[in-house]
Amino acid sequence: MFIKNAWYVAGWASEIGRELTQRWIAGEPVVLYRTEAGTVTALEDRCPHRRAALSKGNLVGDHVQCAYHGITFDCSGSCVSIPGQDRVPSAMKVKQFAVVEKWQWIWIWMGDAGQADESLLPQTFAHNDMDGWEVVGGTIEVKANYQLLVDNLLDLTHETYVHGKTIGNTAIVETPMDYEVKDDHVHVKRIMRNTTPPPLFQQICNFTGNIDRWQLIRFEAPGHVSIDARAYPMGEDSLENGLRWFSLNSLTPCDESSSIYYWTITRCFKQDDKALSELIREKITATFMEDVDVIEAQQKLIETDTRGVAEVSVRADGGAVAARRMVQRLI
Amino acid sequence: MFIKNAWYVAGWASEIGRELTQRWIAGEPVVLYRTEAGTVTALEDRCPHRRAALSKGNLVGDHVQCAYHGITFDCSGSCVSIPGQDRVPSAMKVKQFAVVEKWQWIWIWMGDAGQADESLLPQTFAHNDMDGWEVVGGTIEVKANYQLLVDNLLDLTHETYVHGKTIGNTAIVETPMDYEVKDDHVHVKRIMRNTTPPPLFQQICNFTGNIDRWQLIRFEAPGHVSIDARAYPMGEDSLENGLRWFSLNSLTPCDESSSIYYWTITRCFKQDDKALSELIREKITATFMEDVDVIEAQQKLIETDTRGVAEVSVRADGGAVAARRMVQRLI
Amino acid sequence: MFIKNAWYVAGWASEIGRELTQRWIAGEPVVLYRTEAGTVTALEDRCPHRRAALSKGNLVGDHVQCAYHGITFDCSGSCVSIPGQDRVPSAMKVKQFAVVEKWQWIWIWMGDAGQADESLLPQTFAHNDMDGWEVVGGTIEVKANYQLLVDNLLDLTHETYVHGKTIGNTAIVETPMDYEVKDDHVHVKRIMRNTTPPPLFQQICNFTGNIDRWQLIRFEAPGHVSIDARAYPMGEDSLENGLRWFSLNSLTPCDESSSIYYWTITRCFKQDDKALSELIREKITATFMEDVDVIEAQQKLIETDTRGVAEVSVRADGGAVAARRMVQRLI
Repeated sequence: MFIKNAWYVAGWASEIGRELTQRWIAGEPVVLYRTEAGTVTALEDRCPHRRAALSKGNLVGDHVQCAYHGITFDCSGSCVSIPGQDRVPSAMKVKQFAVVEKWQWIWIWMGDAGQADESLLPQTFAHNDMDGWEVVGGTIEVKANYQLLVDNLLDLTHETYVHGKTIGNTAIVETPMDYEVKDDHVHVKRIMRNTTPPPLFQQICNFTGNIDRWQLIRFEAPGHVSIDARAYPMGEDSLENGLRWFSLNSLTPCDESSSIYYWTITRCFKQDDKALSELIREKITATFMEDVDVIEAQQKLIETDTRGVAEVSVRADGGAVAARRMVQRLI
Repeated sequence: MFIKNAWYVAGWASEIGRELTQRWIAGEPVVLYRTEAGTVTALEDRCPHRRAALSKGNLVGDHVQCAYHGITFDCSGSCVSIPGQDRVPSAMKVKQFAVVEKWQWIWIWMGDAGQADESLLPQTFAHNDMDGWEVVGGTIEVKANYQLLVDNLLDLTHETYVHGKTIGNTAIVETPMDYEVKDDHVHVKRIMRNTTPPPLFQQICNFTGNIDRWQLIRFEAPGHVSIDARAYPMGEDSLENGLRWFSLNSLTPCDESSSIYYWTITRCFKQDDKALSELIREKITATFMEDVDVIEAQQKLIETDTRGVAEVSVRADGGAVAARRMVQRLI
Repeated sequence: MFIKNAWYVAGWASEIGRELTQRWIAGEPVVLYRTEAGTVTALEDRCPHRRAALSKGNLVGDHVQCAYHGITFDCSGSCVSIPGQDRVPSAMKVKQFAVVEKWQWIWIWMGDAGQADESLLPQTFAHNDMDGWEVVGGTIEVKANYQLLVDNLLDLTHETYVHGKTIGNTAIVETPMDYEVKDDHVHVKRIMRNTTPPPLFQQICNFTGNIDRWQLIRFEAPGHVSIDARAYPMGEDSLENGLRWFSLNSLTPCDESSSIYYWTITRCFKQDDKALSELIREKITATFMEDVDVIEAQQKLIETDTRGVAEVSVRADGGAVAARRMVQRLI
């Protein structure tokens, strides 16, 4: 069902501390915490004994003590103590997940920790933590399969119809997009020249005429989608009077029908303008909630569809279909 | 599971306008709207592209534009526009349902529109829109299979036990009922002579003595039940000092375990008495909610019944059993 | 799934009167009521006719009249009246369950009533209704399988980790427990000598030094667990200045994933101290809610566990594992 040997976002670095935190990721319960030295640790959140949730227990130094009978595990998932007995059965252990704390997020590798490779992290997400870039972001729980959210981000023609109040207008749908599949990425590109700015861009930049607008999208499996978005006065080819940001989105499946949507907008202009940051946070949150409304309804219509009829794809689906194929191949 | 080639009530004519409205009928999502000329249109509410809900989209003239990617369908369900491309694949279409607006309700034919035959509408429901008849009615969502509601209406002995505060008393159960199956109807008849009036009838007519009371029930598949109800001073055989109304009920299955109950009481006496209309609306709503309470509990007990034991029928079930057989035959 | 030929607690004697009361027990709906003479009666709560809930109906003398069509059953479950007809089909009957009212509770035998044997009631529960013993108790609905609650009570090492605010401390986990299986009982014993009193015991008894503490647990299938709990000043071997109570717990499965937890604490000291009774009620309720929190999370982790990996038992599970085997053998 899910790619296991891959990175998923498990949360914001700021969310994980000395309290045990449960997250469902790719169908598995995970308990996250920081050691006394500050290292983020992730273990299977299901005691091998009687399946109690370790996350309801206590942190004793760097060890997790089960809430129920006090069986204690170290950071590697090995059992270090069973109350009432000295012998520790070899089966008494929980899986340790490889974890990387980077670019403001906690990344988790749900498969074989030995294969976890930090170089496979989606490099564009470095913009979440880069000098000269200002970041706002959020977390949204969505009652839908994560692939519906990936589809959403790989075909931005929907902005015209769903997001007319903020980032959408007819320019998007009128401009064809190109896509390209490389080894482990899908690129989707749409460059709109001599077009009217969408409402949110106009509000931010006060353009006096038409603009050129770029959307350079990069998908990496299983659910990382970065969008290099640019808008500047037509023909200027400079960001002096325009806008450039990365919309960095990572979709983490909880289970087959629910997901967590981690997002940031990270920009390299007006970095010190806190009011602008607040405006972006508010407008982008509203924009994504429009998606959630459409996609949760879509999820229900997929679940109730008993007709056995194939989806009918259109040209704009090129990138999303390539991404789905890539995910299927990796599973 | 459901008869498809048949009429179901999709809603009140007054509910459907220039806004897209979703209804689940016989397991299928339907979007309803009026054209600019006022004609009610019903299409499958599931975009062939990615299964978004068309009903979350917009009406552009008489066309439905999908909320998600702007794919647009005309009143026949044919795709007239796919943003970003000229070619329209032949599979890009949604089903159009035959619809009739009549007698205050919207009637929908869920099967092959070519077979939809207006003459098959249940003719007694014409009393919903007939000179000299005054109508009150309502809509009730019920968490139960629609057939349990049909059963309910075809065996009115339950009025004695469930509706003692309004339309029930022991006269009903003491009087045998007859039933008769004709081509595509089931008739159930109960004539109670020289009997005490039930509380609601007494409140409406102020009878000074016993009454004769008639219940003439007509079932038409899949879920239309009309009851010609009469009550007048014993032996008078005239409605001068009595009551006559049609209780018109149509049960629309949403899915296997939920339904919508459309009902009216339409009367040919005291047509201008608005206080009486309000009294009837209030008392009949309360009466039907008593049924809903019993039937939703029944639904749960049916769903949890793992014994594999057959129901034990009684004589009063004659009409309801005949109706169930008719429905099974039509499926 | 459930042992049928066994006693379950169906409720408090004080809960059952002349109103029809529905309970789900071991997957079956049951209607309970008292006859005019005061005898508690339990019948299958599903009308053989159309599966209406008898418990929504009326008590007519000692007979239950179905809410829906008035079919009436006597205390033995035999049908005594079908409105509208004289003949009563032999299949028109509901199961009568054997019932005993004893020790403040209603006990129900879910299997063959002919095999119901009052001598099989768990005799320690007599303390719920014994001269010189003061009882407090309660009822808790739990969204978990009843066996998880039985497990909980048969391995009190969890008190150390879950109940540190009331009845738990490290003495428990540091002292080994013994268990013994007899015909139809499992006994678990833990005797802690020269140990510190847990917070609630200290609050009740104001011990001036260490104590000896006993836990004598007795399990009887399917879900009866009595705990003879004693605590007195170290070496005194007298209850003069100490505490002795029975914690009597009966777990009734509603269905596979929900249960009702009936509990009492019945004590033979300070019987007239109402403030103490209130303190015990409050603290033990809080203590059991700590269990419910852990166990409902455990239930979810069991339901979502698709790994097919066996539980890893520890020495302290001896009693609980013996109890599970006893239940499996009886099923």
